[in-house]
Amino acid sequence: MNNDKKVVLVIGAGDATGGAIARRFAREGYVACVTRRSADKLQPLVDAIRAEGGEAHGFASDARKEEQVQELVETIERDIGPIEAFVFNIGANVPCSILDETARKYFKIWEMACFSGFLSAQAVARRMVRRQRGTLLFTGATAGLRGAAGFAAFAGAKHGIRALAQSMARELGPLGLHVAHVVVDGAIDTDFIRESFPEKYALKDQDGILSPEHIADNYWYLHSQPRDAWTFELDLRPWIERW
Amino acid sequence: MNNDKKVVLVIGAGDATGGAIARRFAREGYVACVTRRSADKLQPLVDAIRAEGGEAHGFASDARKEEQVQELVETIERDIGPIEAFVFNIGANVPCSILDETARKYFKIWEMACFSGFLSAQAVARRMVRRQRGTLLFTGATAGLRGAAGFAAFAGAKHGIRALAQSMARELGPLGLHVAHVVVDGAIDTDFIRESFPEKYALKDQDGILSPEHIADNYWYLHSQPRDAWTFELDLRPWIERW
Amino acid sequence: MNNDKKVVLVIGAGDATGGAIARRFAREGYVACVTRRSADKLQPLVDAIRAEGGEAHGFASDARKEEQVQELVETIERDIGPIEAFVFNIGANVPCSILDETARKYFKIWEMACFSGFLSAQAVARRMVRRQRGTLLFTGATAGLRGAAGFAAFAGAKHGIRALAQSMARELGPLGLHVAHVVVDGAIDTDFIRESFPEKYALKDQDGILSPEHIADNYWYLHSQPRDAWTFELDLRPWIERW
Amino acid sequence: MNNDKKVVLVIGAGDATGGAIARRFAREGYVACVTRRSADKLQPLVDAIRAEGGEAHGFASDARKEEQVQELVETIERDIGPIEAFVFNIGANVPCSILDETARKYFKIWEMACFSGFLSAQAVARRMVRRQRGTLLFTGATAGLRGAAGFAAFAGAKHGIRALAQSMARELGPLGLHVAHVVVDGAIDTDFIRESFPEKYALKDQDGILSPEHIADNYWYLHSQPRDAWTFELDLRPWIERW
Repeated sequence: MNNDKKVVLVIGAGDATGGAIARRFAREGYVACVTRRSADKLQPLVDAIRAEGGEAHGFASDARKEEQVQELVETIERDIGPIEAFVFNIGANVPCSILDETARKYFKIWEMACFSGFLSAQAVARRMVRRQRGTLLFTGATAGLRGAAGFAAFAGAKHGIRALAQSMARELGPLGLHVAHVVVDGAIDTDFIRESFPEKYALKDQDGILSPEHIADNYWYLHSQPRDAWTFELDLRPWIERW
Repeated sequence: MNNDKKVVLVIGAGDATGGAIARRFAREGYVACVTRRSADKLQPLVDAIRAEGGEAHGFASDARKEEQVQELVETIERDIGPIEAFVFNIGANVPCSILDETARKYFKIWEMACFSGFLSAQAVARRMVRRQRGTLLFTGATAGLRGAAGFAAFAGAKHGIRALAQSMARELGPLGLHVAHVVVDGAIDTDFIRESFPEKYALKDQDGILSPEHIADNYWYLHSQPRDAWTFELDLRPWIERW
Repeated sequence: MNNDKKVVLVIGAGDATGGAIARRFAREGYVACVTRRSADKLQPLVDAIRAEGGEAHGFASDARKEEQVQELVETIERDIGPIEAFVFNIGANVPCSILDETARKYFKIWEMACFSGFLSAQAVARRMVRRQRGTLLFTGATAGLRGAAGFAAFAGAKHGIRALAQSMARELGPLGLHVAHVVVDGAIDTDFIRESFPEKYALKDQDGILSPEHIADNYWYLHSQPRDAWTFELDLRPWIERW
Repeated sequence: MNNDKKVVLVIGAGDATGGAIARRFAREGYVACVTRRSADKLQPLVDAIRAEGGEAHGFASDARKEEQVQELVETIERDIGPIEAFVFNIGANVPCSILDETARKYFKIWEMACFSGFLSAQAVARRMVRRQRGTLLFTGATAGLRGAAGFAAFAGAKHGIRALAQSMARELGPLGLHVAHVVVDGAIDTDFIRESFPEKYALKDQDGILSPEHIADNYWYLHSQPRDAWTFELDLRPWIERW
């Protein structure tokens, strides 16, 4: 392990938000280790970070598989450096009436958006706790605070990840680990929104959707907070968003 | 289906709370259908209800298995009567440090205390929605409102079941279904507390632990509320409990 | 003081809800002491309770004035009987843009809907605490849980009364006093709604607005709870209400 | 009005937190206008900012008096420059049993910690709204989220100020004003803590109490957020704080 290097591990770096967070930390000198299920889709992100002079590594890793997660963390810590910041950024916002939801999909949404978070955050926390430092950041959503018609599965997973983050913060804070939960409330500037919700996307001109880079700034900020004044939770929403 | 009969289905009737709820509804004339994984352990409850002049049926059914749940609901509705009240009462309060929690246990706690709730509530709601009436009640806990050191798995499951209940309430309320979540905050008068927490149990003399019968009264009360004034959530705690 | 009598004191009995609560307790054998600023407007309520065979007394009392409140409580306890149940039911739902709100109105809304609650609940609690029993019930609103555009003053008062109720519950619960807060979320069947929001009122035919009698049932229910299973907070809303 | 200047107005700059916020903004080029009831006590703060090369003005102003507040805002906007950032930082954490609290003190705590916030935030917001920009920041506390034994008055005021902030955020956000609420949860490094809670203060060596400078960094951060990703609420607590 190279102790001169500091690693940020972003689980779920396939979307704009995860990518922006990785780039942000890389610009601050962190080695960005980014994962998603298929590595080839990570290559553009890895290339972009390197083009900016940063160091990045892409890993094909299924965060739902305990062995893969443990191997991932072990490999990074052994070959690259200590993980100083961890970001769990897997979502699964697939609405469905509770009457029509399939058991398989309800399970899969939880497995992706909550169970993966448990597996990966735990594996990293076990390392951090020995060093008595490190930051664990979770991407949350309004659905993590309250249920809604058509969102039983997503709300369940997001409530679960918030419960995990809060339980970890309370247990691991006094051991030196900063755990925080970011409530993203609003549409993000992504291909998905542009293609599926063009009328939402049109609000971009007046800053009506969240910029992934600005979200990333908040993750960096949370990681930078001195330990006498740590934030557990903050919300982020565009100025014109109704809430 | 016998439309003269009204059924209460209690999933997880193995503990004192589930049993008391079943007895309470039976005393009001409801046929109590009670489940747990092994039917023989349900026999004392079934016998007790019958001894009081009520009608009761015990079902060995694993609430984590979609097929078993669906068959259970179908059998009851076909052979006994319409399910007018549904109670999900499976808990899994097994504390553990987040650093030591196993993936298997984290999963099992969720599967028992949350996924089972989804499977069974959905199966019942699909029937109720056709009749435009019915009550779905979920046993919650303080861990469903906030995480705590040593309770990541339990808090995750309980947050999930609350998200399910709230999402169902918002979607199915306007369709005529009353969905409610009861936050039980405190020790209950059970064998488990008597044996494992004798100093807690000693508070019984001054009403310092919750009586299952009094909890059951609240479930009946929620079921009895007229639809112009439905409660989604209430908390229950002994008068001397710190919170 | 006549110790055979049990008194319910309803502060703010001028509206349909306060009146229904007073009648409900009177039907259970409680002496209903009801207040509002001008006594003559209370006469119909007092007459109605007496016509049902109950005992009732109307008091003109300004709940914003400490001396009047203390004299009221002293008079009742001395001349009628111990106050076993207390209901604070003064609202002041007057929406206004935060830009247009006057300092006078912001103050008056707080004085009526929060400060009065402090004065009267405290005066009663001081008596109850000597007897180590009694129930204190507060009428709340959704505005007590979150602010909203156009509701800064009302939300401030309702947040304040909820903070009072919660602080009292935590301090006085272990002394034997049951303190609870009822979140009424929806329009109530009142003259005000009928005249000012006829389209809301039209929902009455399908139970879309809250019946004061049904609200009152919940106050009685809270008062009846045994002390091993007390509720601090419950919400009430019509089945078709969006939330 | 000098439009080249940007003003930060800190209401309640008498304590370490308010002073640190004023200094932080002054270092960023803002003219610090700081208030408390007696101006002479502000002089050390004004001197300190000037010694660092900043511009500062102290105002003796009673934030509970509407006329004084309006005159203050008018004077600043006319003679100094537009108020771009506003900070309400008056607290009144005076614990007392609900049974012993005086009406006078209950009122005064609300008047100082809530009513003053309404008066001053409104006066400033009316100016900002014409410019369609500006930041309004409120210092909150855990007591703003839940009541506690012995804290009915303080919790009431802090709940009220949070309701104000949230109502303003929802109404004025879409008009271009960023309103945020900071939940400070823990002891702050102040003379008061050093003198009254020496055992708390001893935690300073291990970063166990909040540094006013670090709190101030968060106020500046909130003010700096671009409008597509605004935070309404964040909490701040030392790493070893139990919560």
